[in-house]
Amino acid sequence: MDTRRSPRYLHERLATQVRRRRLQLRLSQEELADRCGLHRTYIGAIERAERNVTLATIEALAEGLGCDGADLLGK
Amino acid sequence: MDTRRSPRYLHERLATQVRRRRLQLRLSQEELADRCGLHRTYIGAIERAERNVTLATIEALAEGLGCDGADLLGK
Repeated sequence: MDTRRSPRYLHERLATQVRRRRLQLRLSQEELADRCGLHRTYIGAIERAERNVTLATIEALAEGLGCDGADLLGK
Repeated sequence: MDTRRSPRYLHERLATQVRRRRLQLRLSQEELADRCGLHRTYIGAIERAERNVTLATIEALAEGLGCDGADLLGK
């Protein structure tokens, strides 16, 4: 078993993936928020791994970023 | 872009993966619940795709199932 997982590793991966993919699409946090139906400050908090988001929010983020939700939690 | 994603597709995948991996480990819902620090009825609801769980809960489920959290949302 992989013993390198730390607490909140999914929060950290989501933060990294959302920020990376948003910048690849040249979107501001506000533009991504509009696409997802979320608030700009909430996108910022997700990118700082501060939010314990739900599956529904991951689906909304993935929709806005044009990817599959599982991709946002990958290593 | 994959257009086959339906609303709540992550909930459905999590339900399928938790049930499949729990049965592979020959665990009851109650035994898995004990491993994860969750309630038995909550495991049942997750396996029926009825709960909009958070990242922290996915981490707890993955810990109890001995896998990575991202594996529980994969196709």
